[in-house]
Amino acid sequence: MAKSQEQQHPKKAFGWAARDSSGVLSPFNFSRRETREKDVAFKVLYCGICHSDLHMVKNEWGITTYPLVPGHEIVGVVTEVGSRVQKYKVGDKVGVGCLVGSCQSCDKCADNLENYCPRLILTYGAKYHDGTTTYGGYSDIMVADEHFVIRIPDNLPLEGAAPLLCAGITTYSPLRYYGLDKPGMHVGVVGLGGLGHVAVKFAKAMGVRVTVISTSPSKKEEAIKRLKADSFLVSREQDQMLAAWGTMDGIIDTVSAVHPILPLIRLLKTNGKLVVLGAPEKPHELPVFPLLMGRKMVGGSNIGGVKETQEMIDFAAKHNITAEVEVIPIDYVNTAMERLAKADVRYRFVIDVGNTLKPAF
Amino acid sequence: MAKSQEQQHPKKAFGWAARDSSGVLSPFNFSRRETREKDVAFKVLYCGICHSDLHMVKNEWGITTYPLVPGHEIVGVVTEVGSRVQKYKVGDKVGVGCLVGSCQSCDKCADNLENYCPRLILTYGAKYHDGTTTYGGYSDIMVADEHFVIRIPDNLPLEGAAPLLCAGITTYSPLRYYGLDKPGMHVGVVGLGGLGHVAVKFAKAMGVRVTVISTSPSKKEEAIKRLKADSFLVSREQDQMLAAWGTMDGIIDTVSAVHPILPLIRLLKTNGKLVVLGAPEKPHELPVFPLLMGRKMVGGSNIGGVKETQEMIDFAAKHNITAEVEVIPIDYVNTAMERLAKADVRYRFVIDVGNTLKPAF
Repeated sequence: MAKSQEQQHPKKAFGWAARDSSGVLSPFNFSRRETREKDVAFKVLYCGICHSDLHMVKNEWGITTYPLVPGHEIVGVVTEVGSRVQKYKVGDKVGVGCLVGSCQSCDKCADNLENYCPRLILTYGAKYHDGTTTYGGYSDIMVADEHFVIRIPDNLPLEGAAPLLCAGITTYSPLRYYGLDKPGMHVGVVGLGGLGHVAVKFAKAMGVRVTVISTSPSKKEEAIKRLKADSFLVSREQDQMLAAWGTMDGIIDTVSAVHPILPLIRLLKTNGKLVVLGAPEKPHELPVFPLLMGRKMVGGSNIGGVKETQEMIDFAAKHNITAEVEVIPIDYVNTAMERLAKADVRYRFVIDVGNTLKPAF
Repeated sequence: MAKSQEQQHPKKAFGWAARDSSGVLSPFNFSRRETREKDVAFKVLYCGICHSDLHMVKNEWGITTYPLVPGHEIVGVVTEVGSRVQKYKVGDKVGVGCLVGSCQSCDKCADNLENYCPRLILTYGAKYHDGTTTYGGYSDIMVADEHFVIRIPDNLPLEGAAPLLCAGITTYSPLRYYGLDKPGMHVGVVGLGGLGHVAVKFAKAMGVRVTVISTSPSKKEEAIKRLKADSFLVSREQDQMLAAWGTMDGIIDTVSAVHPILPLIRLLKTNGKLVVLGAPEKPHELPVFPLLMGRKMVGGSNIGGVKETQEMIDFAAKHNITAEVEVIPIDYVNTAMERLAKADVRYRFVIDVGNTLKPAF
């Protein structure tokens, strides 16, 4: 008979889990593995709430197994390291993002692209190498192979750094990969949510001119004054959009809802690149003629590898970039999920795990 | 009152023109400009029949003005050069492709991308700088600014070289631009028509492993034996397609008809690129998830600039690459158009203008 989640591993752990597709989270006793020779154990202090957590707790992608402890924007302080751990010591500030494992033998892993490894292991709701379920950061402790642990530089406040481990790398990586990181370039950012707002900050720090494209005119002031975007386009205002045709080297499109992409393709210069980061339920309509006539492309990107995640965090530290967050206690998490579903957050909820998660045992 | 086409310019010219959207071509007297100081005049010897000629004679893109003399795969021998022409002399073998003009002052022109210049002037059916209509290569003589004239190397047979000026550059350019030109790469070519068959030849000459993807199993032998493709996939055979998932660095998709692109995206490796060269009437359905999960992209490309066209022709000469052609007399052109509409040609009709076009005056 399979062991219970509480007894499967030697380390007692406690978090909040969804039990069914209602998505409601509640306290949950489980366990984590011992700190193996290459493992780092850390006390979780903060964990961001990513929009994919919302999809997963409700099983909206059809891949959820319950109980599910979400959370892949996890930061904390090292409490224990395995005998062969080289990079970390007790007391270090560290984090774990979307990945806790990969095959480490394929060409993707060799290229530091564990995020595209066909055997990548997600931080929660997946099967680890040993066959046990992975649990995320809405919990008191974390154990992970040091390869997948990111060092958080001292000058970054932990609560603002947590969302960088998913939202940050998800936007930083395509800016780099698609070459939209050159000073003087003009890049559009579609959607000013968890991803979009850090995309603006990274692009600005790279010296890029940034235009936020949004359906909500109400976000203009914040985009420009708070996030330092250079300009703002209301996507429903055809005059504004028309005036901006052919002016952008690239666009980072963070919107997951179904939306027309032709108006975005039109904003691109020749050789321009539309990078989509959200996956709508239905396919986009892709008009081909505008792609041909301007040698434009539509590409995707999904988080980033471990090495690049560290690079991104170090870049963030250098440029004092953090996510704009609303810190909440763990017992607010269900309300936060409801507000997130309505996009009622600027721009990321972060759970104060360290101060508010009280073990029930 | 506007001058007639016969009297507009000093040089008498003769060709075949479509008069209305029936698309039927018939003999047509017109005129061409004098050989200006930067112009090259040449006797047309061969002109390829591009699929876009078929669209244009029937006004299927809604942009045709009649009478229309088609043809933008034009080769011949120089008969006269202007006083300031530097690159060519009488007797040189030359050609003109899809372009005869551009603004020559924008950043695209400065980058040798006249094909993406917003003021590019197409070889036929367009307005030249002087406001007169451009006429294509289904005609006895051609006059063009030397900047837009391509030198045809001596070792290339002219009839096989003609289609390279459109079909050749249209496939060569994206192989280069999208980096699908590295020895050892694996590239798919979708559609084995005028474009596809030269795409196979160029990719092979670049050292790339080529798989032809086609709906017609009957093309397998020819693809492999005649065109030297390495392998062949029947796109309707799901087992074959499945076995090839994730194996290609890129795909050159030459098909203009509406067709599903998800099966093609699945053939790509991580970072793979699907390059579309044909513009279906309706948008493609673009599923986003597969783009994200493999950092894949879908991009377009449209012919190429003048400098790259010369580079392509020189590359073709070095590797003995020509199009496979069926040479026809001009009075067969309407039948050829009908056969082209049914894809009944392997792989390009080329009109023997030099020997078969008889002036009516």
